[in-house]
Amino acid sequence: MKQKFYKYIQHLQNTITSKLEAIDGKAKFYEDLWERPEGGGGRTRVIENGNVFEKGGVNISAVYGELPQTMRTHFGVKEVNFYACGLSLVLHPKNPMVPTVHGNWRYFEMYNEQGKIVDSWFGGGQDLTPYYLFNEDANHFHQVCKTACDKHNPVFYPKYKKHCDAYFYNSHRNEARGIGGLFFDYCRVSKVMSMENWYNFVTEIGDSFLESYVPIVEKRKDLPYSEANRTWQEIRRGRYVEFNLVHDKGTLFGLKTNGRIESILMSLPPHVQWVYNHHPEKGSKEEKLLYALKSPVDWINN
Amino acid sequence: MKQKFYKYIQHLQNTITSKLEAIDGKAKFYEDLWERPEGGGGRTRVIENGNVFEKGGVNISAVYGELPQTMRTHFGVKEVNFYACGLSLVLHPKNPMVPTVHGNWRYFEMYNEQGKIVDSWFGGGQDLTPYYLFNEDANHFHQVCKTACDKHNPVFYPKYKKHCDAYFYNSHRNEARGIGGLFFDYCRVSKVMSMENWYNFVTEIGDSFLESYVPIVEKRKDLPYSEANRTWQEIRRGRYVEFNLVHDKGTLFGLKTNGRIESILMSLPPHVQWVYNHHPEKGSKEEKLLYALKSPVDWINN
Repeated sequence: MKQKFYKYIQHLQNTITSKLEAIDGKAKFYEDLWERPEGGGGRTRVIENGNVFEKGGVNISAVYGELPQTMRTHFGVKEVNFYACGLSLVLHPKNPMVPTVHGNWRYFEMYNEQGKIVDSWFGGGQDLTPYYLFNEDANHFHQVCKTACDKHNPVFYPKYKKHCDAYFYNSHRNEARGIGGLFFDYCRVSKVMSMENWYNFVTEIGDSFLESYVPIVEKRKDLPYSEANRTWQEIRRGRYVEFNLVHDKGTLFGLKTNGRIESILMSLPPHVQWVYNHHPEKGSKEEKLLYALKSPVDWINN
Repeated sequence: MKQKFYKYIQHLQNTITSKLEAIDGKAKFYEDLWERPEGGGGRTRVIENGNVFEKGGVNISAVYGELPQTMRTHFGVKEVNFYACGLSLVLHPKNPMVPTVHGNWRYFEMYNEQGKIVDSWFGGGQDLTPYYLFNEDANHFHQVCKTACDKHNPVFYPKYKKHCDAYFYNSHRNEARGIGGLFFDYCRVSKVMSMENWYNFVTEIGDSFLESYVPIVEKRKDLPYSEANRTWQEIRRGRYVEFNLVHDKGTLFGLKTNGRIESILMSLPPHVQWVYNHHPEKGSKEEKLLYALKSPVDWINN
């Protein structure tokens, strides 16, 4: 399974970066291959200063060896060996009318002393962070997520949509990071789902990514915008930083387990602002976004 | 003691903000008075878009009531009442040749069920974060810290300088946030130090702040700088954000105990950049700074 999924994410990384380069028309992804001293490594691909993408990364990694101490505590296990691989992507577009997107699909194995798999699961999801809210974009993104989920189980979309709303939440601001999407974790073998079934589900989600995001980019990337729109985008990006550095478990794990810092922090936006006590004008488009981030919205039937 | 120290920080806030306004010559601090629903409140003073200070805050607060759950866990105590007051300041200058500075001086009391003080202590410190390193500035800042400390105890400066180096450290980057200063905490009554002695020490340090920082600002504020210097400053400010959001206990406590978010996060810089895998040129002034942040420097005898 691990080889099969790693091959899949290698292929998916190629598909996604090719398509994004074609859309951008200017910048190309550059690649950093890196190795983890304790075992494994990754292929980081970063795009910067493009026509469309101001900064973004589409990274894959496969790491293995002894489970680091902080993760042992987290999982409540003793000294064990593990294997983890996944694809992580974050795209920060230049035009404030185009939303930021994040996606991550991963697979994890834990072994006993004889090297036999004692536990394994899939996890992941994708979520959208607009700066200006177009209801039809939010609807489109969620509709693609739902269609992909529904092919596997009708409970998946409502369940994982809810998890996503709960997870990507800046509790210190009482607002969501964005308009959500999917978030699933610890997808283990069960009576109704074999690991093969989960593989089919997760790859279906991964395969649906470009369909969920690209039409939105195409539709919004040439919209005009003002300096004020740009300032708002940079202020909102500050909230993105706050979430990733204060609340995101993946980022904090990476930082505390000696992960490759530059690959982990490629998720941080290029230009960011913090303005003291900023509040958008009443009735403005900016305020409309904040309103939508107050509590979860049913984007399918909205 | 709590009234005496609160009066002191009220007065110090006035002294510091008046002086900084005079130096800036353009922007004025504006004041937000706020109340904490559970007890107490504060006086936040923020300066933005000045000639010299791009963003900064000099805040005082006095909060009291039941000790919040997260702090009970931290201190290992049961349900108790507390009182805490302090002054916190962060200044982010516009000119990359002027360092960012942070200072905080605080007093804490805990009570038993009869309302009697069962524990009390002072804490605080100040530290400097340059973007371009001028050895004489680092020396001056530390010399003022040392002179103030030495009036009370010759072991204070080396001890609190070391604490500062250890505390303001971005472990995920293997580098210090800046060139340090002083950091002290849990300054309790002892054989050689009464609370009155600690009060005299902490207020000596607070009183020395303007002397430690203002001459550096005056010397550097009109130095010419390039767009490239400014980019470097914004990238380094990113490290400041990383420290405050990932490692700083005060910030995280504030965020997790329902503190006033805007007063806590006034410490974040105004314009910030994250550039993937940025490394300064070999032999450059930027690289010289990084070298100084690798391991603690004896700035007094440097």
